[in-house]
Amino acid sequence: MDSSLLPFFRPNGIVIIGASTSPQKLGYGVARNLTQSGYTGAIHFVGQSPGELFGRPVHKVLAQVPDPADLAVLVIPAKATPAAIQDCAARGIRAAIILSSGFREAGADGAALEQQCAALARLHGIRLLGPNCVGIIDTHLPFDTSFLQPPMPPQGGIAFVSQSGAFCAAIVDWSRRQGFGFSQIISVGNQVDVSEAEMLSAAAEDEFTQVVAMYMEGVSDGARFVRAAGTVTERKPVVALKVGRSPAGEKAASSHTAALAGSDAAFDAAFAKSGILRAATAEELFDWARALENCPAPAGRRVAVLTDAGGPGVIAADALTAQGLQLATLGRAARALLAARLPPAASVLNPVDMLASASPEDYAFCLSTLLTDRGVDSVLVILPPPPMHSAESVAAAIIPVVRASAKPVVIALLGSHLTASAFESFAGARIPTYPFPERAASALGALFRRAQYVGAQRPQIAARPFEVPFRRMTSSIDLLAAYGIQTADLRLATSAEQAASIAGEIGFPLAMKIASPNIVHKSDAGGVLLNVRDVESVLNGYTQLMDSARASLPQADLLGVHLQPYIFGGQEVIVGAVRDPQFGALVMFGSGGIEAEALNDVAFALAPLGSDEADDLIRRTWAGRRLDGFRNIPPVDRAAARDALVRFSWMVHEHPEIDQIEINPLRVLTTGAVALDVRRGP
Amino acid sequence: MDSSLLPFFRPNGIVIIGASTSPQKLGYGVARNLTQSGYTGAIHFVGQSPGELFGRPVHKVLAQVPDPADLAVLVIPAKATPAAIQDCAARGIRAAIILSSGFREAGADGAALEQQCAALARLHGIRLLGPNCVGIIDTHLPFDTSFLQPPMPPQGGIAFVSQSGAFCAAIVDWSRRQGFGFSQIISVGNQVDVSEAEMLSAAAEDEFTQVVAMYMEGVSDGARFVRAAGTVTERKPVVALKVGRSPAGEKAASSHTAALAGSDAAFDAAFAKSGILRAATAEELFDWARALENCPAPAGRRVAVLTDAGGPGVIAADALTAQGLQLATLGRAARALLAARLPPAASVLNPVDMLASASPEDYAFCLSTLLTDRGVDSVLVILPPPPMHSAESVAAAIIPVVRASAKPVVIALLGSHLTASAFESFAGARIPTYPFPERAASALGALFRRAQYVGAQRPQIAARPFEVPFRRMTSSIDLLAAYGIQTADLRLATSAEQAASIAGEIGFPLAMKIASPNIVHKSDAGGVLLNVRDVESVLNGYTQLMDSARASLPQADLLGVHLQPYIFGGQEVIVGAVRDPQFGALVMFGSGGIEAEALNDVAFALAPLGSDEADDLIRRTWAGRRLDGFRNIPPVDRAAARDALVRFSWMVHEHPEIDQIEINPLRVLTTGAVALDVRRGP
Repeated sequence: MDSSLLPFFRPNGIVIIGASTSPQKLGYGVARNLTQSGYTGAIHFVGQSPGELFGRPVHKVLAQVPDPADLAVLVIPAKATPAAIQDCAARGIRAAIILSSGFREAGADGAALEQQCAALARLHGIRLLGPNCVGIIDTHLPFDTSFLQPPMPPQGGIAFVSQSGAFCAAIVDWSRRQGFGFSQIISVGNQVDVSEAEMLSAAAEDEFTQVVAMYMEGVSDGARFVRAAGTVTERKPVVALKVGRSPAGEKAASSHTAALAGSDAAFDAAFAKSGILRAATAEELFDWARALENCPAPAGRRVAVLTDAGGPGVIAADALTAQGLQLATLGRAARALLAARLPPAASVLNPVDMLASASPEDYAFCLSTLLTDRGVDSVLVILPPPPMHSAESVAAAIIPVVRASAKPVVIALLGSHLTASAFESFAGARIPTYPFPERAASALGALFRRAQYVGAQRPQIAARPFEVPFRRMTSSIDLLAAYGIQTADLRLATSAEQAASIAGEIGFPLAMKIASPNIVHKSDAGGVLLNVRDVESVLNGYTQLMDSARASLPQADLLGVHLQPYIFGGQEVIVGAVRDPQFGALVMFGSGGIEAEALNDVAFALAPLGSDEADDLIRRTWAGRRLDGFRNIPPVDRAAARDALVRFSWMVHEHPEIDQIEINPLRVLTTGAVALDVRRGP
Repeated sequence: MDSSLLPFFRPNGIVIIGASTSPQKLGYGVARNLTQSGYTGAIHFVGQSPGELFGRPVHKVLAQVPDPADLAVLVIPAKATPAAIQDCAARGIRAAIILSSGFREAGADGAALEQQCAALARLHGIRLLGPNCVGIIDTHLPFDTSFLQPPMPPQGGIAFVSQSGAFCAAIVDWSRRQGFGFSQIISVGNQVDVSEAEMLSAAAEDEFTQVVAMYMEGVSDGARFVRAAGTVTERKPVVALKVGRSPAGEKAASSHTAALAGSDAAFDAAFAKSGILRAATAEELFDWARALENCPAPAGRRVAVLTDAGGPGVIAADALTAQGLQLATLGRAARALLAARLPPAASVLNPVDMLASASPEDYAFCLSTLLTDRGVDSVLVILPPPPMHSAESVAAAIIPVVRASAKPVVIALLGSHLTASAFESFAGARIPTYPFPERAASALGALFRRAQYVGAQRPQIAARPFEVPFRRMTSSIDLLAAYGIQTADLRLATSAEQAASIAGEIGFPLAMKIASPNIVHKSDAGGVLLNVRDVESVLNGYTQLMDSARASLPQADLLGVHLQPYIFGGQEVIVGAVRDPQFGALVMFGSGGIEAEALNDVAFALAPLGSDEADDLIRRTWAGRRLDGFRNIPPVDRAAARDALVRFSWMVHEHPEIDQIEINPLRVLTTGAVALDVRRGP
């Protein structure tokens, strides 16, 4: 951890500036929470009404506060904050949490005030968390600088880093009846200084933190976030709920890539690159976090379902399949053991249905048997309110089996009233339960994807793995060529006669395309002729292209006609990039042609790409999978497409001045791949 | 309701056969539940141990039971059931619920026993519910024939019809802490006689039932189910969780249509045709049911979000968009009222963020204002544990506003501990609450889709809207032609010379295709030549097609080569049908060609199709939307495609001997649409 952040996590003494003796005020709640939190360091209060609060003096000014004091918590009006920051500087305090609101979120005046605070903090070397946040709660140290209603959340292994204070408050309150706890709650507020990336790294360093859950609306620095998250996920899982999915088209989309990217593709790509599991809903965020906190990693995707009723077993089977998991095929030994134990009408295939008569001992025996089967990577146990026994007795029987297992087990604990006591037992044993099979299956899916990420090879790509010559690159074609991407020779003719002469040099057949900076979709404007086979066609073609361009776009500036060898065969794909304001160059691969946007058969990844990443990107699209051949479509040179993609990704990575660029199509041939057209925007 | 079902819902006297004085036995639980249920009709017990049970005599045999007695509940071993059915017949009882298990679900012996029961019931005119079920609970009549742990679920407007008894039990127990109740619980078990379709209709007739929720693993008669459900959904909403989604390929897929259909497409199509809202998860099933039970229908998709915190508002906005809903644009008057009421830093755009200081009165005022705005169709209120006020006081302030409104309002009530009392208030007022904004948004989505369905025109198509001549139809081409689908003239040549002669009659250009019953994918086998322009090419082409077919599929039976006029231009689509064992002909429309399966740009609907249904099917695919033109792809005759689809759907509907048939491609031209190739399977 950056040493400047240490006071936020290991403070020797905390000063609450704005402590109040009036229970209506937030400054009272903060004082109450910190005092009651069990914090063993020094606690100081500074406030306007002198006297005593929770057995401690309320100082009039910060200068009066004795040592130790290295973290300030500000609960004062926004406009008083700059002065308080200066007081902190004078008192030698180098870390402050600004709980107050009334800053950037409140309009222009607040934003100016926020900038003033930032400037003062920089000047004095003070780190600021917030403003407009809930503060930090650490359940193990412990301490609580928030004003949330007590009690503190229970101890647990989930660190929650949130860009919404209200969501923090809601989650802390919600979790009280969900059977799980937190190591830390970190509310980052407006992030005038300390960023979500820094807090992610810091939270992951905590020894009690098993998993970091994040609520995000944006990032303060995309590259920094990806780097920080990538480092964290090497050791601990991170799950994130990213909201604020703005629809495509924030940026004027002058390319298919930009039109398809929207702002969410960049976050998807950033999370994929840094190994963050992206949850779709708030509920899923914590469903996953609880499993990741408490379960070992599964070795594969084969899941056994253990149930005492058919219906919920079918629900589980469906949901597991939807998660990309597989129903395990049970081994002969396991099936024999199960068959010997269970009534004849029971199913010893997967899902294993023990029938409603299943006893606690049956549950334990069958679960042990499944966990011993080498073909089983994890188990989903379904426990409805059992008709013959109490759910609590089943819980008591299987908890030791789950705890002794090196394979993950999650419980779909159905009902609520009749299973309340079993719920408490599982929570106490840190075995994740879910009210429905679908949510249990989703948690197993997250465990599997995490295990897959941990197991995958991720060679660190420190530098570009190929040479780029130093030379003047005046056009996009030059640039592609410099990065070793094969392009088709492209020559400009400004008259029909010149076209005929160039055709003589290039040879037939050739392709002719209207050349105009204003015509984005050439074929739409009747601006493309393919497979032109003789001089007469070139002469006529020139006139025809110019005429139809003039007819369809009268204002367009027409430079003439490009001529290019016409290349037969192969398959066409699109390779594009758009610069995301947060994460840099976002590379796209997929189905090109004029229907690119309609088909939406594309995938995105952050540049630069390693060879494996490029392969993965290709395989995520139908256009990419088809490169290996399909039916009577012969296979083409996928390695060449991958190579072009890697080179392209480095090109856009190293040329930040490129906002949008797109090869459409890249023609992938039996050997090699050629960029037939390239367009740069905006 | 079929009068034979009346005793299940309005019994004058219930006999429990297998009543037991031993609390360990299910026969005790059933007696206990019925006695305690508040049932005001006659209650009789028949059991082996004579004596008294809950103040009533236990009769030794059914014949001893006095009048009235018109419904029997059987809780006896499976093998004793046939005799008990005969006893019922002798006693004049015409309706029986068989709770016992040990029938079909237990193997071959059980299945035989079940058939024996069915035969006896038919013989004596007795209706059977079950076996292997939980029975019926009616909270309003009231009565309870189940053995589920008491108490009965609270009263409510949801009827739950379930094919899983265990899932019934779990849901009843779960709902106790969810703040909602049921009108009826109907467990249909193995459905040896009474079907889920009959119970759906019966449940919907209940005056207290506002919505029917179903758990389904299959249907006993697809056509009957669609008919029954379609009738119910004209008056009351039906939501269903259908599980057991088997992967594609149960049926040998000799067509793209069959490969793409799987078994789930049929259920999707059946639910769409009958107006059932299909939930993806168990949680969603009841999230939707609660909203449909209690909320008025929204007039459109424009939703206002009212919140006191930014984060949850953003989550809601994302989720609403994902549901296909829109954030309402607030009117000037509403914005002015909001701005006058709220602090300057509040947002009076949508989501309306009142800030954390929002009082209960602010909530009520702003909600009223939003509900009065003519541009708002529904409101999603977000209520986190409020920092300054109690959630309970906010609930008290807004409940009258919600109840007085003709527009739907749902509440995202975050937290749990601090909002527990507000939760009870909303539940008492029958206002649906959800623990997270995403689930509230999903409920609004269901309300909108239901309103859309109710508002849509659905002309009843009683008969085929066109004539089909009586004539001998020897081939698929004849069949298409008889139903008025234009086909390209297709002539078989069995020698190169004959091909040349036919070509002379048809004229050039033409298409040549290998003719073989064994070659399914002609182009894969090099069996297609297009745009053949002269006699020499026909002669060479014949040899070439026969040679490549022999090379690629040596065992294929080659009939010769088909010749056909080569038709230029237009757009190609696929039109197919596959016979679903439950629902009959399932029609597919979408992107054809050899990549049909890979692109998966297809949609399904049940035959026969009305004109509007056909249009809808077309619009659900990219291939269909493209018919109206896209970029430089000119529009074609969509009406002709729709007409062909309607005719095709009647053709497959009226020819049940067709298992699979596929037009690939249907070439849609500037005027008209022509079936270029048709394949029938298996």
